Amino acid sequence: MRILITGGLGFIGSYFAEKLSNSAEQIIILDNKTGFSLSGEDILLTKPNIKIHNVDIVSSDIDEYFMNIDIVYHFAANSKISEGVNNPNIDFDITVRGTQKVLNAMKKASVNQIVFSSGSGVYGDQKETILSEDFGPLLPVSYYGASKLAAEAMISSFCGMSGFKAFIFRFANVVGMRQTHGVAYDFVNKLKIQPKTLEVLGNGMQSKSYIDVEDIFNGIELAIKKQVTNIDVYNISTQDYIDVRYIAKEVIKEMNLSDVKINYGEDSFGWVGDVPIVRFSSDKIRKMGWSNKYSSQEAIQRAIKFILSDDNS
Amino acid sequence: MRILITGGLGFIGSYFAEKLSNSAEQIIILDNKTGFSLSGEDILLTKPNIKIHNVDIVSSDIDEYFMNIDIVYHFAANSKISEGVNNPNIDFDITVRGTQKVLNAMKKASVNQIVFSSGSGVYGDQKETILSEDFGPLLPVSYYGASKLAAEAMISSFCGMSGFKAFIFRFANVVGMRQTHGVAYDFVNKLKIQPKTLEVLGNGMQSKSYIDVEDIFNGIELAIKKQVTNIDVYNISTQDYIDVRYIAKEVIKEMNLSDVKINYGEDSFGWVGDVPIVRFSSDKIRKMGWSNKYSSQEAIQRAIKFILSDDNS
Repeated sequence: MRILITGGLGFIGSYFAEKLSNSAEQIIILDNKTGFSLSGEDILLTKPNIKIHNVDIVSSDIDEYFMNIDIVYHFAANSKISEGVNNPNIDFDITVRGTQKVLNAMKKASVNQIVFSSGSGVYGDQKETILSEDFGPLLPVSYYGASKLAAEAMISSFCGMSGFKAFIFRFANVVGMRQTHGVAYDFVNKLKIQPKTLEVLGNGMQSKSYIDVEDIFNGIELAIKKQVTNIDVYNISTQDYIDVRYIAKEVIKEMNLSDVKINYGEDSFGWVGDVPIVRFSSDKIRKMGWSNKYSSQEAIQRAIKFILSDDNS
Repeated sequence: MRILITGGLGFIGSYFAEKLSNSAEQIIILDNKTGFSLSGEDILLTKPNIKIHNVDIVSSDIDEYFMNIDIVYHFAANSKISEGVNNPNIDFDITVRGTQKVLNAMKKASVNQIVFSSGSGVYGDQKETILSEDFGPLLPVSYYGASKLAAEAMISSFCGMSGFKAFIFRFANVVGMRQTHGVAYDFVNKLKIQPKTLEVLGNGMQSKSYIDVEDIFNGIELAIKKQVTNIDVYNISTQDYIDVRYIAKEVIKEMNLSDVKINYGEDSFGWVGDVPIVRFSSDKIRKMGWSNKYSSQEAIQRAIKFILSDDNS
């Protein structure tokens, strides 16, 4: 199996590259090295069957890398989350135009299988509604969510028009080894600089599922094996939820800090476009035989330990 | 009211421009004059409160036209349907990048209301399933449908992030005065050249709702008046369906032709990406008080008469 991974040096991409390199004949990574994992790159550089190209999929000619590839894991996305909040074009350009570039390159090279990392953002702000994959209408409230939905749509049309097979995954908040962003990551870095005060974006009541990258890896590999239709969409999440206040306390505990004053904001959301309450149904992938190994609590605890370890850079 | 209409010289756009000019203070039309209506332009040129700019929204700087606009009717779309079938980038570039340009221009000029013409293509190929607005997952099978869904998503995110109000309409097949493309239009033009034979794309059993442009105008204006949420999506369709064989026979009858040999294709679809059976629920807009004036049969009969009249150019 010859695999191409866009964003293959990022948090999720580098995890997949490392795991898949155990069995794949060859792994080609395209990554523009923004928001990437240094420690992940170090490990991947030791693998003889992994070739890393420092390439920006939006601005570069990428066609050549898709020759003789069997399947594409398309993980490249905007890693400048805070900038994307104020500028729609960052997400639109990277995710929408990037996906268009990848699909065209696949078609030219007759590569017809694609794994895509979508997310809960496609559903918009649906409060306590349990969101299954057939929920509609999809009205994303963030540029990030809109870009993911646009990319899903474009991928779907290549299944209809060009015989592609697509595996689309809407993840809960993915955490774990080598994560390069996210709420726990931000808390750790804030507290390293200022160990007596923690400023939290929003009132801390934002409540979501957190899923370990190992669990999403297992879900994706299972769906690839079992899916019979030419396209399908899967939520991947735990069945429990934790709030930001819990994460703040876990980070403080794990860092052995005391007397930290936590300053919560007034808004229910962390930033404009943040969806404070997300309730996922992951029944569909569970019916295929998947289950999460780690709960949200366990996943975030593991993630905090990874973030604090020397290896997480 | 100052209104900007993208694609305002096209079939749907020119109808709206003419009707809205009766009450609007000013109408600004942006149109690149591909697949536009000559007779529509002639009429609109006589209206003192309509200003037409021959501008391509994708390649040109369009920001200046959005100053002091109250609402945008975003109708610009790929009119080269047959070319779009083979090249994903035509629809992606015009609809996706065009919508991105329009949204950015609106934001810069503090215009925050948008009407968008989406279509049944967002639903994908769902056979006999009755499609209401909350159907999911949305897996479009054509580049056209994918682009419309991507545009819906992008518009939705501007509602969440920038306080826009959006009115999204998923139309059945729109027909009527000054239509510049479509199955009846194609049949008339084929029979003008070759009156003894009619080549039909597909087996003629494709069965869909056809709705008069007058009916969609009334539906849109009603929704704009009544919608209280910052974004909503409405199907607009008749409650009956006709197939392509019926349309072929009506065209032949209206043209007073006889002994026409109709050659049907073997496929159930007219072209790759065509969805042969579309079943729409329009209950949502009906509950707001809308109903169609013309059935599918009546709408297509009127359309054929318009196409055959001297005014339809």
